[in-house]
Amino acid sequence: MAGPRLAIVGATGAVGHELLRVLAQRDFPAGAVRVCASERSWGKSLPFNGSELTVEEATPRVLAESDIVFIAAGSGTSRALAPQAVENGAVVIDKSSVFRMDPDVPLVIPEINGDDLTWHLGIVSSPNCSTTPLAMVLKPLMAISAVERVIVDTYQSVSGAGAEAVRELRLQSAELLDGGAAEARKLPHQIAFNVLPQVETFLEDGYTTEETKLVNETRKILHEPDLALSATCVRVPVTVGHSEAVHIEFRHAVTVEQAREALSQAPGVRVLDDPAAGVYPMPIHAEGEDDVLVGRVRRDVSHPRGLALWLSSDNLRKGAALNSVQIAEELVRRGLLTFERHPEGAKARA
Amino acid sequence: MAGPRLAIVGATGAVGHELLRVLAQRDFPAGAVRVCASERSWGKSLPFNGSELTVEEATPRVLAESDIVFIAAGSGTSRALAPQAVENGAVVIDKSSVFRMDPDVPLVIPEINGDDLTWHLGIVSSPNCSTTPLAMVLKPLMAISAVERVIVDTYQSVSGAGAEAVRELRLQSAELLDGGAAEARKLPHQIAFNVLPQVETFLEDGYTTEETKLVNETRKILHEPDLALSATCVRVPVTVGHSEAVHIEFRHAVTVEQAREALSQAPGVRVLDDPAAGVYPMPIHAEGEDDVLVGRVRRDVSHPRGLALWLSSDNLRKGAALNSVQIAEELVRRGLLTFERHPEGAKARA
Repeated sequence: MAGPRLAIVGATGAVGHELLRVLAQRDFPAGAVRVCASERSWGKSLPFNGSELTVEEATPRVLAESDIVFIAAGSGTSRALAPQAVENGAVVIDKSSVFRMDPDVPLVIPEINGDDLTWHLGIVSSPNCSTTPLAMVLKPLMAISAVERVIVDTYQSVSGAGAEAVRELRLQSAELLDGGAAEARKLPHQIAFNVLPQVETFLEDGYTTEETKLVNETRKILHEPDLALSATCVRVPVTVGHSEAVHIEFRHAVTVEQAREALSQAPGVRVLDDPAAGVYPMPIHAEGEDDVLVGRVRRDVSHPRGLALWLSSDNLRKGAALNSVQIAEELVRRGLLTFERHPEGAKARA
Repeated sequence: MAGPRLAIVGATGAVGHELLRVLAQRDFPAGAVRVCASERSWGKSLPFNGSELTVEEATPRVLAESDIVFIAAGSGTSRALAPQAVENGAVVIDKSSVFRMDPDVPLVIPEINGDDLTWHLGIVSSPNCSTTPLAMVLKPLMAISAVERVIVDTYQSVSGAGAEAVRELRLQSAELLDGGAAEARKLPHQIAFNVLPQVETFLEDGYTTEETKLVNETRKILHEPDLALSATCVRVPVTVGHSEAVHIEFRHAVTVEQAREALSQAPGVRVLDDPAAGVYPMPIHAEGEDDVLVGRVRRDVSHPRGLALWLSSDNLRKGAALNSVQIAEELVRRGLLTFERHPEGAKARA
């Protein structure tokens, strides 16, 4: 049987670009690959695996001729196109937050809850780029002891806000080094040589949507609906790679050695933990890497059953494109490309 | 009576430079100001208050002719010169960590524990630049309820590592923007477009000296020797201004409104907290400011009696030079420039 036919919606963006790279690098057995984007990119060519793909419109026909549609183009596009693609028989792997908390949509990190794919109804969501590395690190530790509370403060790169934010960081950095002023367009304030305690937008309770997603998505992925979790999400002047300082309270004490051992056995996690030798995760290590890097594992001295640790992860790869491709691989492996249709088609238009 | 005669040891460094600016800005009633540094700077001129000061050696004679000696020149210099200065009758205001945890040395933030100055024996220590803003924010909240536990993750600027680290950040940034490679000399790894979960050096328990200082100094300043507190200290590519994500557990629930009110009344603290309008503390706001800026005050959703908040502070001013000058002002105001000599002279040489 020929491999599944793929369409990538949002192919010209930061995540779309990485999706093409990851598909090529992993030799994904695609029957065909089509690339879609907004009107201004139609007709452009994108390199893929030694050939060139032409950007086209995501028409109902393109969707109907695809088995898997990756959508990485913002919430509006996901809301409009996901139900269409599903009605046309495709499975949607969606990077937006639109469907993630929908009880009919599995939110999947294959290493953690691949089994949730079995109940998909056409749409599978891939988690937020700050959620994924946290869940990847919590899951193996939860096999040692239940987790009672997690506090996480993030150090998130600008590529999480898209390719335009990356250009903004570079442009502002150059302007400021030249003695000029920095103009903020994409991000709410100057990001070069600054940090912003704002990722996305604020809700009534003083948390941002990013922080709220981190809490809710982690609970859903880990099947821990009552996990106590709070976060401060901060944008830092880094191009690629999200880092997180994590403080975990366990029900039963977990030693540093037990934690390191469990993490080093976990697929998709790599322990980099020899701080005295200057070895710990950093964004410059994480960029381009598939694994979530974890280190600085130590007793949390403020809690009798606490551990503290630090992680870095490529937000465009495991935080986005890689995880989406892994979902596709898992759907293929489990024979889950045919499905009962998701009722979202009706809901999303309601 | 003429004002006290001052000597500044380490006058050519980042903190020394800021000390001269703060003394001038606050019209400190100095009888004389002398500036000392290492041999390569002797004879150089430093601008001060419209005139020029000539850098000289910190000889016993210079120390003997001073009433207050500020030392901001690294641990070795503090260890060598502080006892000498005290023996020569000067009060030392020391920025290094050498004497901070000495039970015979008050560690003072004037707004918090100015009364501890009354028992000084010649040396007064000024806290670490990540400790000061945290203590400034915890103290007014502790007036509402006892604090049971604090978790803090920092976003610390390179100027905390000295003027050379600032040059390194700028140089690396320019090199990387030009497509070149970044060379790390002063800091352990590339800092431009990266974050380092290392400030200072690692101890046996996996914490850094910076993190350990943050814990121990906060306890000493707040007179809370058993406060549960843990930290991850992280260097970020910011020139000036340390920020901190803080999670506080209180004995009795404290509302967001109570916390904001207490913080807005606290001297040296300014509340910037209208996140929906993009108003929250950032390093670019903190630079050059005397106040510790605090915002994003919200319930910590992971704890029934928890609050989370965010602060930024100029690490060279309130985190260093300003606090030292405020200590000097307080010593003058309280008439504490004569004293029983500190036994450290003997200890330090033992």
